[in-house]
Amino acid sequence: MSGNPVPVIILVEPQLGENIGMCARAMLNCGLDRLRLVRPRDGWPNPAAKATAADADAVLERVEVFATLDEALADCHHVLATTARARSLAVPVETAETAARQVVRWNAGGAGVAVLFGAEASGLDTSSVARAERLVRFDTNPEFPSLNLAQSVLLFGWEWRRAALASEPPEEEGLPATRGELRPFLERLVSALEARGFFLTPELRPTTEAILHSLFHRTAPTERELALLQGMLTALLRERRTDGEGAASGHEAAS
Amino acid sequence: MSGNPVPVIILVEPQLGENIGMCARAMLNCGLDRLRLVRPRDGWPNPAAKATAADADAVLERVEVFATLDEALADCHHVLATTARARSLAVPVETAETAARQVVRWNAGGAGVAVLFGAEASGLDTSSVARAERLVRFDTNPEFPSLNLAQSVLLFGWEWRRAALASEPPEEEGLPATRGELRPFLERLVSALEARGFFLTPELRPTTEAILHSLFHRTAPTERELALLQGMLTALLRERRTDGEGAASGHEAAS
Repeated sequence: MSGNPVPVIILVEPQLGENIGMCARAMLNCGLDRLRLVRPRDGWPNPAAKATAADADAVLERVEVFATLDEALADCHHVLATTARARSLAVPVETAETAARQVVRWNAGGAGVAVLFGAEASGLDTSSVARAERLVRFDTNPEFPSLNLAQSVLLFGWEWRRAALASEPPEEEGLPATRGELRPFLERLVSALEARGFFLTPELRPTTEAILHSLFHRTAPTERELALLQGMLTALLRERRTDGEGAASGHEAAS
Repeated sequence: MSGNPVPVIILVEPQLGENIGMCARAMLNCGLDRLRLVRPRDGWPNPAAKATAADADAVLERVEVFATLDEALADCHHVLATTARARSLAVPVETAETAARQVVRWNAGGAGVAVLFGAEASGLDTSSVARAERLVRFDTNPEFPSLNLAQSVLLFGWEWRRAALASEPPEEEGLPATRGELRPFLERLVSALEARGFFLTPELRPTTEAILHSLFHRTAPTERELALLQGMLTALLRERRTDGEGAASGHEAAS
């Protein structure tokens, strides 16, 4: 297992420092030490986190803080979200065991992998879930399913550790584009749609945008495919010409 | 899984009510609802437990409290202890996954099964470990192995749930004697040894007694075997006779 990278655990808008500390401890129990925070409610550093981390200082000292989830994901090739609710999005759901195996294969193939955990009370919002290729489901008691934040992190870490110790074969597929590479395309797409009156009402826009995001994030295009998508978009945005030259040059720019 | 009994979780001398509540929550997350406490430091009921149980009230309301571990174990056929340290005892150690499968098989065969968890800081003492047939090891990061109480309970419960959902075939072996049935034999054995000057110093006695306890608890004798052990002990304690009649009648009483 040594030498292989480990997944990044990302807490999105965590509230209590105590819980961040307990997450750090649970992570290190399982051999995970890369923790990112997106907009922690009480700022960072937070003394309450140190109090509950029980000497998992190595994790807390390396915490990276981001203002947006997209920035936290910029260098990641694959993203999973832990949530019981798929919301309105068609993201495939996997058990923690299956997801953990996939993470180990992705990491072994050289990809950067992030696993998202939502805030204590509210979980992940639709926009965050839309960043994920897969959702991770914890098969707890259906009559009493709710895990607290650190317990969710512990169970994911426990499954990850089991999978890592079993030394899965590396993922043979090529790396997808990082989220940082994908983002300009999505921004360009949304701007273009906006300029063309695609979003009918401001109320529906976040949901529509989340569905679009989810669609492309789930697909996890390679760099080459992403270039093709950019080329397609360029072509589509061009004024139609009768000789078809625009579409052809658009595709060439992408490949 | 419904209809099958579940293992009893026993917390030995737990300190903080908050941790008891978090254990109850973790148990119910995994479908476990039988909790016993041995000498809880702050008494019982404890309002601090309710505060952290997050509506796992069904577990807290059914909590049973005992003055000694032996009383808590009296109706149990099989006992596991969760501890990283086997102490000086030769108790077999299993992973949580393997232990959980065994628990499911035992329960499915009609046996009462207890799983012991020690106090927050100190864990289980040698005398408690000596009650166990097997030890349960959590394969955490060797450089940062220490789990808190509720996390240990959660990981055991998680593995138990996985094993229970996989519906293991029931244990075909006969039931061992309950711990309540075994105890008079052990008390009689220790008294007899004491009367014969077996325990050389008061300092060494607890360790020696623990080794003896561990030996017989690990063996998990059936009721018939236990009767035979009692008969053997009777015979051994009798004055030696030249015609051998004492040994013969002792064995008959046992079978």
